[in-house]
Amino acid sequence: MSEQPAPSPAPASPAGVPAPSADATLPDAAGNRVPSSALPSDIASALKRDGAGLVAAIVQQHDTNEVLMLGWMDDEALNRTMTTGRVTFYSRSRQEYWRKGDTSGHVQWVKSVAMDCDGDALLVRVDQVGAACHTGTRTCFDGRSLDVVTGTAE
Amino acid sequence: MSEQPAPSPAPASPAGVPAPSADATLPDAAGNRVPSSALPSDIASALKRDGAGLVAAIVQQHDTNEVLMLGWMDDEALNRTMTTGRVTFYSRSRQEYWRKGDTSGHVQWVKSVAMDCDGDALLVRVDQVGAACHTGTRTCFDGRSLDVVTGTAE
Repeated sequence: MSEQPAPSPAPASPAGVPAPSADATLPDAAGNRVPSSALPSDIASALKRDGAGLVAAIVQQHDTNEVLMLGWMDDEALNRTMTTGRVTFYSRSRQEYWRKGDTSGHVQWVKSVAMDCDGDALLVRVDQVGAACHTGTRTCFDGRSLDVVTGTAE
Repeated sequence: MSEQPAPSPAPASPAGVPAPSADATLPDAAGNRVPSSALPSDIASALKRDGAGLVAAIVQQHDTNEVLMLGWMDDEALNRTMTTGRVTFYSRSRQEYWRKGDTSGHVQWVKSVAMDCDGDALLVRVDQVGAACHTGTRTCFDGRSLDVVTGTAE
């Protein structure tokens, strides 16, 4: 697929690893360069990306409405998620695409995707196989509650 | 807590408005300067903030599990959310704190807050009064579905 060398390790990487963007080619997990995104232009133009070219993707179990996790997507990750039936994220720490479940088996089957009113968040409803969290819990929020003061209508 | 200066302004920032940080003082909606965050240090040290000092906050209706919206919080917004019973965000576009419902009446009463496994996302479960979205829809994702290819287990 590619004549490019594999990228250097991401977090400590010096210059040369491009920030994600709709137009960049980026290395995937196998070190392949991937083409510019084929995301429909009306969707691409509505996305409000952060400084790294990413939007937040909330992943929700489609039948129970559990919030499973939050990941990040650039245009290409969103395009793959919309067109392949499987959820693909862009890893901020590793600076590469990752398709949920490829190593763990904990696949996320896409049921629907919605973009929010200002284009900086996506709601991806899925059928989650097994644990959504890499720590082994069903969701990335299980057992991680903070002590708060609750509120109620006066 | 710190003698460190505030970080440089975010890219789209007008001159003189500091990016949010745990240590900065920032103007709220009324233009008041607010004190450094009193967020507990164990929580502050677990947060993994983006380049603008923010984490994503997913807001979910506590009894139906609807995902209502996604907002952004710095340390101070999280501290206010945890201690006042009302959800406070940090607006990336306006660069100020905003307490949901102060202008619309569409208050979010806090039921619980959880931090995810890697500290870059919060799940805030609330009792939402009225519409969560400024456009008037119950959630910021209503009626905003994208055309996707769905997936199912083989």
